[in-house]
Amino acid sequence: MTNSKNIIVVGGDGFCGWPTALHLSGQGHNITIVDNMSRRAIDAKMGADSLTPLSSMEDRLLAWKEKTGLTIKFEKIDVAREFDRLRDLMATVKPDTIIHFGEQRAAPYSMKGVCEKRYTVDNNISGTHNLLAASVELGLDAHFVHLGTMGVYGYDDDGIEIPEGYLPVYIPGDNKKIFQRHILYPTNPGSVYHMTKSMDQLLFQFYAKNDHMRITDLHQGIVWGTQTNETRLDERLINRFDYDGDYGTVLNRFLMQAVVGHPLTVHGTGGQTRAFIHIQDTVKCLALAVANPPARDGKVAILNQMTETHTVRALANLVAETSGAKIANVDNPRNEAAENDLRVSNKTFISLGLKPVTLAEGLMDETQQIAAKYAGRCIRKMIPCVSTWTDNQRPGVIDPDNSRAA
Amino acid sequence: MTNSKNIIVVGGDGFCGWPTALHLSGQGHNITIVDNMSRRAIDAKMGADSLTPLSSMEDRLLAWKEKTGLTIKFEKIDVAREFDRLRDLMATVKPDTIIHFGEQRAAPYSMKGVCEKRYTVDNNISGTHNLLAASVELGLDAHFVHLGTMGVYGYDDDGIEIPEGYLPVYIPGDNKKIFQRHILYPTNPGSVYHMTKSMDQLLFQFYAKNDHMRITDLHQGIVWGTQTNETRLDERLINRFDYDGDYGTVLNRFLMQAVVGHPLTVHGTGGQTRAFIHIQDTVKCLALAVANPPARDGKVAILNQMTETHTVRALANLVAETSGAKIANVDNPRNEAAENDLRVSNKTFISLGLKPVTLAEGLMDETQQIAAKYAGRCIRKMIPCVSTWTDNQRPGVIDPDNSRAA
Ligand SMILES: NC(=O)c1ccc[n+]([C@@H]2O[C@H](COP(=O)([O-])OP(=O)(O)OC[C@H]3O[C@@H](n4cnc5c(N)ncnc54)[C@H](O)[C@@H]3O)[C@@H](O)[C@H]2O)c1
Ligand SMILES: NC(=O)c1ccc[n+]([C@@H]2O[C@H](COP(=O)([O-])OP(=O)(O)OC[C@H]3O[C@@H](n4cnc5c(N)ncnc54)[C@H](O)[C@@H]3O)[C@@H](O)[C@H]2O)c1
Repeated sequence: MTNSKNIIVVGGDGFCGWPTALHLSGQGHNITIVDNMSRRAIDAKMGADSLTPLSSMEDRLLAWKEKTGLTIKFEKIDVAREFDRLRDLMATVKPDTIIHFGEQRAAPYSMKGVCEKRYTVDNNISGTHNLLAASVELGLDAHFVHLGTMGVYGYDDDGIEIPEGYLPVYIPGDNKKIFQRHILYPTNPGSVYHMTKSMDQLLFQFYAKNDHMRITDLHQGIVWGTQTNETRLDERLINRFDYDGDYGTVLNRFLMQAVVGHPLTVHGTGGQTRAFIHIQDTVKCLALAVANPPARDGKVAILNQMTETHTVRALANLVAETSGAKIANVDNPRNEAAENDLRVSNKTFISLGLKPVTLAEGLMDETQQIAAKYAGRCIRKMIPCVSTWTDNQRPGVIDPDNSRAA
Repeated sequence: MTNSKNIIVVGGDGFCGWPTALHLSGQGHNITIVDNMSRRAIDAKMGADSLTPLSSMEDRLLAWKEKTGLTIKFEKIDVAREFDRLRDLMATVKPDTIIHFGEQRAAPYSMKGVCEKRYTVDNNISGTHNLLAASVELGLDAHFVHLGTMGVYGYDDDGIEIPEGYLPVYIPGDNKKIFQRHILYPTNPGSVYHMTKSMDQLLFQFYAKNDHMRITDLHQGIVWGTQTNETRLDERLINRFDYDGDYGTVLNRFLMQAVVGHPLTVHGTGGQTRAFIHIQDTVKCLALAVANPPARDGKVAILNQMTETHTVRALANLVAETSGAKIANVDNPRNEAAENDLRVSNKTFISLGLKPVTLAEGLMDETQQIAAKYAGRCIRKMIPCVSTWTDNQRPGVIDPDNSRAA
């Protein structure tokens, strides 16, 4: 490969990070995974587990080496708490690109209680800021790629297509003059997790402006699917499949309900519309983002990384058709719009050549190759969600990324 | 007093917090100061010191007791790092109001190097979030009053008066429809310190919306002056006067230049306009904010706490007239607008009865009672600022709060 880059993948043991690390390694890049394995530790503590059997990082990397001859390096570092080790690693690797997946990413987990709220804020903000501050201190010219989420917008902007880049707004000024400004899309986060993603945006805005860092912030939809071309090569490479009440997203939870013979529980009318992307496309988008760093123009490149929107109702119908499961409409305990529209511009990735995997195409695979195949590993009691959003009186409010089914 | 409140003053050893604690104690409220004394520790580490001689917290509280018969409690707690002690204290005090001054507040300090950047982010974000999360966990109904700054706006919005509350904007949507939204005023922070204040705003937006907390965010101008009616009662109660390159704001630094016989160094044309307020008015505004908590309507009450705007040039002229000092125009090393206009709405405090102390009135006092009186304590080498804003090549960019003179 002509243009092989040194890439640090923070959170490279996770659901999105692992297949991305493999894909970029397969493309000929030099990959160093940094992960503190906190996601596995949280599972262990909650008594949850991936439906698919995860190998240790050692075995994962060994399998990759056996299958492809390629070496991926791994460093167990907590980017929020081990700054000196992180900086030393960055000084050694001299990354061309840093991809940052290493955050606590579940909205319900972030709302469980005061410990989880504090952990989510401290882990996500300090970790992200440490990576930026270390890059500047070391004088690295690394392109920083971060995973944000569509969920920060709060889904109440019917009628406005969510743009890429900054949002043009008009502000009434003096003497009836109207001023135009290009601003970060105003966020309305619905959980502590989403709040940290909104705060991350301000970190990026500042470091792009003040230090001329090149930063790409990928506002990602809900990722579905499990396997990619690379993770399919060997069972030791298999990707994680979360279905528990905290980390499982709506589709995985419908799939598990179908497998265990429970009706698919749809809140209210199921008219909540969300954005989706298949894990295979996530991986492709990351490769495109790595290959196309933005100009050093003082602005963050904000791209929407999603390929389809669906209502929760439509999702349930699709799963029901594929699996024969029944649908049960239940009261919506959350304080969210019963029906909402969602339109998102994703023109950058499409123009860069992305050909999305549609839900209609990929769902059968997911049902048969994953949900049915590993059904025996399902811990039924982990399916319901027990986090409440507020002071114990009022159950869950808005939960855009998970849009959980039960 | 009929309406005596339990008030926790976080950062109550600091420049704004100390006189506020005294004033509220004088009004009959039960005050508990929480401070980790980090500000004094930073001075000690930098070899700097307040121009005015500060007593220990013990002696301060003893003097207050002797002069007024009133007791103020004090707990040395780091609100960012000692969560359990903080929560236990809050459970015991059951505050009606929490006033939060306890952040690292100097822009130049926050830009000194990677340690100071990380400290500012971790201290300010974790501290603020811990206070909010603990309030929710304990089911307190405390009114949370926070000190924000005008500096988050970045001073580039000529023609738009900085409003109180949320900013109405118009966003073009589909079919040529225009949508109105009320959003947090888009911030353009010029330092890591200001960035943390922008991030704080997202914490408040979320906790007001999700947990119905009553939150007042006071966007304060540059505070000048040293003494208040209460701190004048005894020299052991004297307030701090910072003049070093990191913590000293423009007026104090002009005053010290005048005292040590240095010309007042004005950057460029000195046409940068900034908002100001006297410490006596800060204290009055806090008392008004405490007495007038906002409705529990899911929104943060955002008030502008400033009374005058001045250009740096006009400030220098005022100090020169009072002191006989010369003015030297020097190149502006910072990347900021040479001239800017600034208009700020402060109608809430004015309508609540605030009668501001003007700079023209208060300056003579400041020159004679503080700068000249304590001139012998001045450490001359601390006056210049040595922080650079970026990668050592480019000196300081924007520094709205300090607008430092040298
Ligand atoms: N999965 C989705 O549907 C989705 C949707 C939108 C955005 N995202 C974003 O994509 C990113 C990756 O998500 P994911 O689904 O792969 O999550 P994940 O939890 O599976 O992976 C995150 C990884 O980061 C690691 N990590 C967390 N904190 C760390 C720290 N301080 N130091 C080192 N490593 C740390 C964890 O151990 C884990 O392996 C997240 O930022 C998430 O918010 C995910
Ligand atoms: N001074 C100004 O001109 C000005 C202008 C605008 C806004 N503000 C804001 O007002 C607030 C108070 O400013 P100030 O000038 O009094 O600053 P200061 O530094 O004099 O006081 C801050 C106090 O907070 C304490 N503190 C800091 N971190 C703490 C922690 N983790 N736990 C406990 N205590 C902690 C410090 O020890 C110090 O006593 C700040 O938030 C500042 O940003 C000040």
